[in-house]
Amino acid sequence: MSADAVPQLDIPTLLTALTPEEKAGLLDGSDFWHTQGVERLGIPAVMVTDGPHGLRKQSGEGDHLGLHGSVPATCFPPAAGLASTWNPELLERIGAALGRECRAEEVAVLLGPGINMKRSPLCGRNFEYFSEDPALAGVLGTALVNGVQSEGVGTSLKHFAANNQETDRMTVSADVDERTLREIYLPAFERVVTGAQPWTVMCSYNRINGVYASEDRWLLTDVLRDEWGYRGLVVSDWGAVNQRDAGVHAGLDLEMPSSGGGGTATILAAVKAGTLSEKDVDLAVTRVLELVNKSLPALTPGQTFDADAHHELAREAAAASAVLLKNDGDLLPLAATGTIAVIGEFARSPRFQGAGSSQVNPTRVDSALDALRAARDVVFAPGFVIESEEADPALVEEAAAAARDAGVAVVFLGLPPSYESEGYDRDHMDLPQHQTDLLNAVADVNDNVVVVLSNGSVVTVAPWQDRAGAILEGWLLGQAGGSATADLLLGVTNPAGKLAETVPVRYEDNPTVGAFPGEAGHVRYGEGLLIGYRWYDAHRLEVAYPFGHGLSYTSFAYADLEVTTGSDTARVSLTVTNSGARPGTETVQVYVTDPQASVYRPEQELRGFAQVSLAPGESRQVTVELDRRAFAFWHPALRDWTVEGGEFGIRVGSSSRDIRLRATITLTGDEVTTPLTAESTVDGWLAHPSAGAWLRDQLGDGPFNAMLFDPKNGQMMRAIPLLRLSRFPGCPVTEPQVRDAVSRFS
Amino acid sequence: MSADAVPQLDIPTLLTALTPEEKAGLLDGSDFWHTQGVERLGIPAVMVTDGPHGLRKQSGEGDHLGLHGSVPATCFPPAAGLASTWNPELLERIGAALGRECRAEEVAVLLGPGINMKRSPLCGRNFEYFSEDPALAGVLGTALVNGVQSEGVGTSLKHFAANNQETDRMTVSADVDERTLREIYLPAFERVVTGAQPWTVMCSYNRINGVYASEDRWLLTDVLRDEWGYRGLVVSDWGAVNQRDAGVHAGLDLEMPSSGGGGTATILAAVKAGTLSEKDVDLAVTRVLELVNKSLPALTPGQTFDADAHHELAREAAAASAVLLKNDGDLLPLAATGTIAVIGEFARSPRFQGAGSSQVNPTRVDSALDALRAARDVVFAPGFVIESEEADPALVEEAAAAARDAGVAVVFLGLPPSYESEGYDRDHMDLPQHQTDLLNAVADVNDNVVVVLSNGSVVTVAPWQDRAGAILEGWLLGQAGGSATADLLLGVTNPAGKLAETVPVRYEDNPTVGAFPGEAGHVRYGEGLLIGYRWYDAHRLEVAYPFGHGLSYTSFAYADLEVTTGSDTARVSLTVTNSGARPGTETVQVYVTDPQASVYRPEQELRGFAQVSLAPGESRQVTVELDRRAFAFWHPALRDWTVEGGEFGIRVGSSSRDIRLRATITLTGDEVTTPLTAESTVDGWLAHPSAGAWLRDQLGDGPFNAMLFDPKNGQMMRAIPLLRLSRFPGCPVTEPQVRDAVSRFS
Repeated sequence: MSADAVPQLDIPTLLTALTPEEKAGLLDGSDFWHTQGVERLGIPAVMVTDGPHGLRKQSGEGDHLGLHGSVPATCFPPAAGLASTWNPELLERIGAALGRECRAEEVAVLLGPGINMKRSPLCGRNFEYFSEDPALAGVLGTALVNGVQSEGVGTSLKHFAANNQETDRMTVSADVDERTLREIYLPAFERVVTGAQPWTVMCSYNRINGVYASEDRWLLTDVLRDEWGYRGLVVSDWGAVNQRDAGVHAGLDLEMPSSGGGGTATILAAVKAGTLSEKDVDLAVTRVLELVNKSLPALTPGQTFDADAHHELAREAAAASAVLLKNDGDLLPLAATGTIAVIGEFARSPRFQGAGSSQVNPTRVDSALDALRAARDVVFAPGFVIESEEADPALVEEAAAAARDAGVAVVFLGLPPSYESEGYDRDHMDLPQHQTDLLNAVADVNDNVVVVLSNGSVVTVAPWQDRAGAILEGWLLGQAGGSATADLLLGVTNPAGKLAETVPVRYEDNPTVGAFPGEAGHVRYGEGLLIGYRWYDAHRLEVAYPFGHGLSYTSFAYADLEVTTGSDTARVSLTVTNSGARPGTETVQVYVTDPQASVYRPEQELRGFAQVSLAPGESRQVTVELDRRAFAFWHPALRDWTVEGGEFGIRVGSSSRDIRLRATITLTGDEVTTPLTAESTVDGWLAHPSAGAWLRDQLGDGPFNAMLFDPKNGQMMRAIPLLRLSRFPGCPVTEPQVRDAVSRFS
Repeated sequence: MSADAVPQLDIPTLLTALTPEEKAGLLDGSDFWHTQGVERLGIPAVMVTDGPHGLRKQSGEGDHLGLHGSVPATCFPPAAGLASTWNPELLERIGAALGRECRAEEVAVLLGPGINMKRSPLCGRNFEYFSEDPALAGVLGTALVNGVQSEGVGTSLKHFAANNQETDRMTVSADVDERTLREIYLPAFERVVTGAQPWTVMCSYNRINGVYASEDRWLLTDVLRDEWGYRGLVVSDWGAVNQRDAGVHAGLDLEMPSSGGGGTATILAAVKAGTLSEKDVDLAVTRVLELVNKSLPALTPGQTFDADAHHELAREAAAASAVLLKNDGDLLPLAATGTIAVIGEFARSPRFQGAGSSQVNPTRVDSALDALRAARDVVFAPGFVIESEEADPALVEEAAAAARDAGVAVVFLGLPPSYESEGYDRDHMDLPQHQTDLLNAVADVNDNVVVVLSNGSVVTVAPWQDRAGAILEGWLLGQAGGSATADLLLGVTNPAGKLAETVPVRYEDNPTVGAFPGEAGHVRYGEGLLIGYRWYDAHRLEVAYPFGHGLSYTSFAYADLEVTTGSDTARVSLTVTNSGARPGTETVQVYVTDPQASVYRPEQELRGFAQVSLAPGESRQVTVELDRRAFAFWHPALRDWTVEGGEFGIRVGSSSRDIRLRATITLTGDEVTTPLTAESTVDGWLAHPSAGAWLRDQLGDGPFNAMLFDPKNGQMMRAIPLLRLSRFPGCPVTEPQVRDAVSRFS
């Protein structure tokens, strides 16, 4: 079905036909999940509904807060899982499947993906987010959005921006400097916007440097539309509107859910008072109508989707999402014979998604226990009650007994659902104590212990990982996670997932200690650029497992690094060989370093990656293009992306701490001249191409010149701003001369 | 001599007699070191001059930047040394000696002490500052100021405020939240102001949150004078004036050095334009005249000081300043017999002070080599050239040969003078590589190695300390440091110094990694409250030597902790016993913890200390009073000091990580009611004494009430601000009702 086959709204005509009240009304929801229609003009209401790893369309009447039960839909792995695939092609296919499910339910927009950075391991909603790295989150978000939208269904890129915690999320101000915003918290949004043009962007609840995202014109208009070229609509997170009129001016087009008329009244009053222009209102109305137009072609009744095929896709995704953290002595895949002790309630009652607005009603759920039983001789013991904080001695005893007699014990541990959810943050990073006690009890009687983890956000493994020969980090794997896990354990599938976030040794190692979740309405992003691996690298901290880590049942060799350069770009190519005995998939990661920068730069930053599947012994050349932005930083004085000419390092690795190949390249970069200001130091003046000569003339070889170049005190003296120096008794340049020179040379 | 014996200026009369030009002129220096006088009205110029650990009065004509040679004066240990004494009584005596030297030179004001916090180990001026802890710096600064001023000579408390680096010091903005300012960067100033009323306070060069300290009315008037009750004058750091008229209004009374008439013209023009009030000018003039009045009694010619007695005092101070970091197997004090190999140029050519404005021309200088030779059989080898980055193989060989045949090798290592100075920051925290190589060469041939360190700011010891049996951290010890060091090594004096700053294992462990010295005119104090030990504690980092650490040649036992409490105060008493064989001095440290706080609080904070000297076997009861501020935090919403009732921990230790006694106390504290605002959450409303009941009435037992207390989603729902919730469809409280309630209940 093509767009032009469906009647489209004639927006210019409608703008003249709509009354002011109707226009203001179009900028508000009509209920929890629908936009408003205008029947007399043939403008339909369209439905938007929660996602993003599955459709959450409420069945029956929506309740007041939108959290009641929903129609069955395929539950794919949440973002914490999907991110570990490092596989944009897979995410695009999942997106398309999500789009088909939306069409079957006549949903115009799926509210996702969420691509906020994982600033703190304790953020309760980390399971809905991709990564601690903006490049990875941006590439994967782009793929998911492109997939959904390929089916004629919209997405809502959220939560824009700097929404990195649940505590006080509706009011807290993320206090963060612009360079950090530009380099860490905004780039994933930027990449998805420029690469996929999501139909909607959802503004977040929080404030940024004191300004509500829902009324931040710099964010919603200057950056999002004017700089990035965004052409879609901005919708509020549900309840994110503060001052509705300020929001319209800022670029927040649509308030959701319905404000019950309050928002409309505020808009009308502001237009009447002249504090909000009709132009701003018309612009927002236009965007709402454009959204309706985009939605109409796909909103035909009677469409269906193939639930079985989507379940299989969910299984493929789940298998690709799991990360093999550890595999001592090739304990995995499980030996082909012998009894397997399957221990842990999660094996029988899988935890496969998180709680809150993203919670999907799955079409079916696979358990690992069932899948393993179908393949092998299995003894099962639940070991613990998931939502308990206490050990049950009888269950522990039963588990130990099962383990004692088995060839291998596979222990399913994880976070209880109550530990992590939208709406609140975690208190700590640990598994429940009774679960690790259970592991100890099992390991005491069986030397072959495999741990399978189910957790939406990272957990500490250091206190117990010595007791496990192998660890499979399953994150939350969606409805087919159970069968996918069995496939991985049995070697039917070869693990290929890589960590999209660091597993630190201890909570106290993380960058937000003392600055999360903030207090009195503010949270200081004190670590600046240094979130995730950037922090652990800068502080030379040991980690349990580094960003980008993930083992395979085979091994890969890296060779023949070649880097060709443009003036501010590079092409990296290398040969990867499957040096083991099984087919497998490797994700080659390219990190860039900038040792000569004039500003502080992280030790290394992921700037590209490529995935390659290889038969045993097979080699293939892999190429990664590094664009200008791979080398640029946000210049805090020039307020622009800047590539400083000079040496850059290229590091190619299997993880951020398993760098296999290195090269040094030289780029021409930009011509950077920092403008002279009243604050520029003597050294700054002397370095300026034309002002330097002027100043040297002025100084001559008098006593000031001697002092400025005195071997002992010269450095200190030349660090004085010239304007300030001019006030010192006897200075050969006067204050008026300096002020004049600032205007001439800057 | 009493103040009333000397004729005083009649300020009210002068204020009517002075012309506007004369008044404006009085607010400017007349040259580098003098205020302006008004001869026709008998107002003299007075001299202010650099300190603070000795007098730096320039001899002959002042040069343009004030850095030429100065008259001889006693060089006491700089602040980095003095702080390690933890001895306010000693600092008060040193202050009095400094005052006498000023009187002998007819100096009205000594420009010091500097009490800024050691935020980064790399700050080039750390040697001039006391500590990473505001309580310790405040107590010691108060003592020094009281000492100087007891002689009728003024001080200048500097650099006010948040001047914690040299890089870009004249322009950089310290971006720091108010709670951090109030709890870390201002309290030392507050304590000295309230406890000693320094005659002058020197505003710093830098900006704070974008505002120059020299024109920050909040800082110089609201906080300094209105809150703290400061009654003295504010002088600019030399060249710190930016907009002179804004400075006068802010409370910056005196510009130094002379602006050559520029400042005066600006003031006159602003008064004429009506942008600066005559009242502001008169206030500043009054303060200048009051300073002259305070100075006059001591400014009589022909006074002298006892240089020998001051040298002896400098020696006492030096001995008290050194910190015995390590003393394996009681290697120190040195055995009474046998040859001592004294190695390292610093033994012969002591480094005893830092560079820049504080550099004193000493009356004499003791070397450790001379002092050791006078007492014992010594072989000396210089080992290296101080200002070289390269080893000299012949010197190394000579040193190794000397060490090979000696009973013990005492190796004097340290930072070359060029490594640290006013005006620039260090690049790294390490000793020169060739010095530690020398240590290795010595340790290879002699098992008894003692290292004596000379460094103004902390150096890494982890890479080499295993090669030394004992380490004496000498900081910079002033002109008598050499003889004092010999006294300590030989056991004539028993070490009693304690670290006033943490010695971290590695530079990368420190809190300012990535946020020092900033860029583009800003430095983010991202670590907030967590500087020094507060950081290392919060991140559970191993340190080389913790804050408060320092060994003795004897040992001390702690017992009988008793804590009595008021509503927001406590008295801590305990018994300390000298459990060793030598007389010695111990510093008992009291740390407070606040585990139940509603805001983030550091793990523990120094709140009091006491020093006790004991004969072998002697016991004494030690009492430390903890005032209200020992338990208070700066409430970021109430913007006031707050003691929250509940449990507090009292930790009494010999260092911050050698806690010997613990107690838990309960304080009533303040009645704290956080005011309701438009941002208050449902939970916040429910917790309010009267508004809670109102809200419960409104909610009744309808569907909103059910959702707010739903076991699964209730926590998330109650975190919504009530005003925001009121916009949701069907909410039983309307937006106008909430706004009305905010005004009624807040």
